[in-house]
Amino acid sequence: MVHYARAARFPMKEKDLVRLCRGIVGKEHATDALEDRICHGCDATREQALPDLVVRPGCAEEVGAILSLANERRVPVYPRGAGSGLTGGALPLRGGILLDTSRLNRIISIDPADSTAVVEAGVVLGEFQAAVERRGLFYPPDPASSDFCTIGGNLAECAGGLHCVKYGVTRDYVLSAEAVLPCGDIIHTGSGTLKSVVGYDIGRLLIGSEGTLCVFTRATLRLIPLPECVRTMLASFRTVADGVRAAVRIASGPVLPRTLEIMDELTIRCIRAYKPFGLPAGAAAVLLAESDGPPAAAAAGIARMAEACRAEGAIEVETPSDKAEADLLWEVRRAASPALYSLSPRKINEDVCVPRSRLPSLFEGVAGIAARGGIAVACFGHAGDGNIHVNALYDAADPDERSRAERGIEEVFRLVLDLGGSISGEHGIGTAKARFLSWEVGGREIALMRAIKRLLDPNDILNPGKIFPDEPRISADERGSSRILP
Amino acid sequence: MVHYARAARFPMKEKDLVRLCRGIVGKEHATDALEDRICHGCDATREQALPDLVVRPGCAEEVGAILSLANERRVPVYPRGAGSGLTGGALPLRGGILLDTSRLNRIISIDPADSTAVVEAGVVLGEFQAAVERRGLFYPPDPASSDFCTIGGNLAECAGGLHCVKYGVTRDYVLSAEAVLPCGDIIHTGSGTLKSVVGYDIGRLLIGSEGTLCVFTRATLRLIPLPECVRTMLASFRTVADGVRAAVRIASGPVLPRTLEIMDELTIRCIRAYKPFGLPAGAAAVLLAESDGPPAAAAAGIARMAEACRAEGAIEVETPSDKAEADLLWEVRRAASPALYSLSPRKINEDVCVPRSRLPSLFEGVAGIAARGGIAVACFGHAGDGNIHVNALYDAADPDERSRAERGIEEVFRLVLDLGGSISGEHGIGTAKARFLSWEVGGREIALMRAIKRLLDPNDILNPGKIFPDEPRISADERGSSRILP
Repeated sequence: MVHYARAARFPMKEKDLVRLCRGIVGKEHATDALEDRICHGCDATREQALPDLVVRPGCAEEVGAILSLANERRVPVYPRGAGSGLTGGALPLRGGILLDTSRLNRIISIDPADSTAVVEAGVVLGEFQAAVERRGLFYPPDPASSDFCTIGGNLAECAGGLHCVKYGVTRDYVLSAEAVLPCGDIIHTGSGTLKSVVGYDIGRLLIGSEGTLCVFTRATLRLIPLPECVRTMLASFRTVADGVRAAVRIASGPVLPRTLEIMDELTIRCIRAYKPFGLPAGAAAVLLAESDGPPAAAAAGIARMAEACRAEGAIEVETPSDKAEADLLWEVRRAASPALYSLSPRKINEDVCVPRSRLPSLFEGVAGIAARGGIAVACFGHAGDGNIHVNALYDAADPDERSRAERGIEEVFRLVLDLGGSISGEHGIGTAKARFLSWEVGGREIALMRAIKRLLDPNDILNPGKIFPDEPRISADERGSSRILP
Repeated sequence: MVHYARAARFPMKEKDLVRLCRGIVGKEHATDALEDRICHGCDATREQALPDLVVRPGCAEEVGAILSLANERRVPVYPRGAGSGLTGGALPLRGGILLDTSRLNRIISIDPADSTAVVEAGVVLGEFQAAVERRGLFYPPDPASSDFCTIGGNLAECAGGLHCVKYGVTRDYVLSAEAVLPCGDIIHTGSGTLKSVVGYDIGRLLIGSEGTLCVFTRATLRLIPLPECVRTMLASFRTVADGVRAAVRIASGPVLPRTLEIMDELTIRCIRAYKPFGLPAGAAAVLLAESDGPPAAAAAGIARMAEACRAEGAIEVETPSDKAEADLLWEVRRAASPALYSLSPRKINEDVCVPRSRLPSLFEGVAGIAARGGIAVACFGHAGDGNIHVNALYDAADPDERSRAERGIEEVFRLVLDLGGSISGEHGIGTAKARFLSWEVGGREIALMRAIKRLLDPNDILNPGKIFPDEPRISADERGSSRILP
């Protein structure tokens, strides 16, 4: 049995805990088999911890009973959707109960007349998106993990993605939610109506609280009409500054782009080495953008974007009207992440956000940090909202390179904050950035957040060790990734 | 000196309080002159209370010092923007300090490249809207009081308005805020970037808390490109059901309307009597809608809306391409409120919200309630998001009619909740609906809200008596409106 960085054992025999949990969810839905515990102990950070047992409740009442039991016995509970989070939000740092929401997987209703849908927390985002699109509707939040991440995880992390520049993030689409508090109480936030201002906005306090204040079990989501047509553009630039100026011009309208992505020189170089997409030699930045709406409007929008790129000195601009060709352009963007791995076996993937106009300073600053530290850093991401994924590449077998990469990322955070930015645009804090929380958030604000945590979870049983920096962090040496995952 | 429904005197001489406040904000900005206290003791509910003094701080630090003093001496503080709220949020129920934010009136910056603006809380919304529009940008929240309401009040109430169906409400445009807590601490929420998920979303807990958790002093707001063109449509229907079916069809897309308003038969009748706009005889419902975007897209949008109305049996559809004619259509909508006064000198103006498809049931139910109670009830409002202003008309000189109107509104709330709706779409709870809070919000949820209030304001000094129902409510007999306002 492996437990990492556990603060203290909870005062209960594990066999008793398994028995009590089975009494709540049924024998087949609570297990302490090692293989289940390993599979549920990791997330997309590639770190690993081990829960003592995995519990799969089938309804909100069972979630409530599990939390009530855990709260009474002071057992840590770690909620987990698909474990696709990038900052350790689902890691069961202190053992205890891993609460897997995957059985809460029903799409209860999709209502085109009211533009709403009711879903359980374990519904996979991509399946939900497909279901609403079949009804002519659109649910815009779209993190890269949409094929497997869950709606509950999206609420917990306030997930973003490609469409935020035009359509906002998860919080903008949650009308009401059913949530279970650490004491086991089931509460309902908001109203199922499109507008409501009745009492405090508890729902939006809980959304983005990274599983530390509640377990979401159900949500009523706002839908919008599915745009009839999407058009795509890819433009290449000689310098990042040219590309960013074009991005600012595009995002200034008159119509917001549906997506507006940027890739820097190193990313482009890796993609070129990975697969011959025909990106022009000499390109130091690429913009990939979409326009959506009725066909004529989408075409007019993409034409304006192309014009903006040419006005800012683009080397090459492609605006295919054919869907297959447009899909090919998106393959370039999708190739970014795997292509970087072809250069280096590991990367630290950060997601900083700066005011859009500061992107040239960000890219320049990152290049300087990389050069000084002797590390490779590739940047790509959502230029439209200034949210950039900064990838420090390193070889895990080279501890010196790794620590240079880690130091480099710290320098990037300082740079971002100097530029008026934020250390996380969409991935959250979790365990990965807990020690940097106070770099961005002031002491009074952290004290207020901690007071709210204590108010809702006085025994600190729900997802302990996340967001706030006082809990022992999994050190690089203790990371299970090298032991268990490739 | 008139104090209404004061629970208890605070343990301090008033002259001392004036002196101490003058020490903070300067002699000319703290006054206990009766005329100032009367002018700042009312709001758009037409109710009246009297603060002991009016204080006009000039910066966040002065707000902090006033709150710190008040918290130490247990003096109630009532924040006030323009006093345009419709539910009593700014009424100084228990005397004490009326904190007027009108001196915090600077637009600090408008930044087109970043799509953001920084404003102080006392900036008038309409002036801000005009300033950003001159830069080719758009700030969509648009309550009817935009000519005089303030941004700080908009945040406190999470103001809505005409554009919500397409563009959302105030909370969707606040990136970060500077706020003063009841203890006097100044905090900063969120980040000035377009995206950020760093710690709990304190900002959205505070937005819509109706001045009970903090005083907003400054905000960084998100802007979007100003739509190039707006087109308008007015359609008349023989029945409300026809009109609502058309509204549902319009709101189903493929492009969301910029506005989508409905007026019922009594409203139409009052408007016809008030001014000859040429609304067709026999119309029991009117839809007024807008489409925005590039000129061709806006025109195509309005054509589709007109088509949807004709398909649902509209008697008459107008889609002027001329701006002056379109403005005339909006005069019809703007006439609704004054026109109702021409039928009856007083009205109770509620703003319930139901799932859009339940609007026919709402209108039918309201007609039944009106008929049974022998009262006149006119409905108009935001059909696009199901948010309807239900106006119970009465003569204040007839106490029986008044109490029938009040009972009728209670029946409307029951109906709305039966239809899965909310008792406030955009006006909030304040004093006016505090006793109905528990009709919509469950006991656990209210307990959680109260616990958050106690956490931030243990001495209950900030805007006490609002939202939560245990405080003495101003009774009809004690209302100052009949004494002081016409």
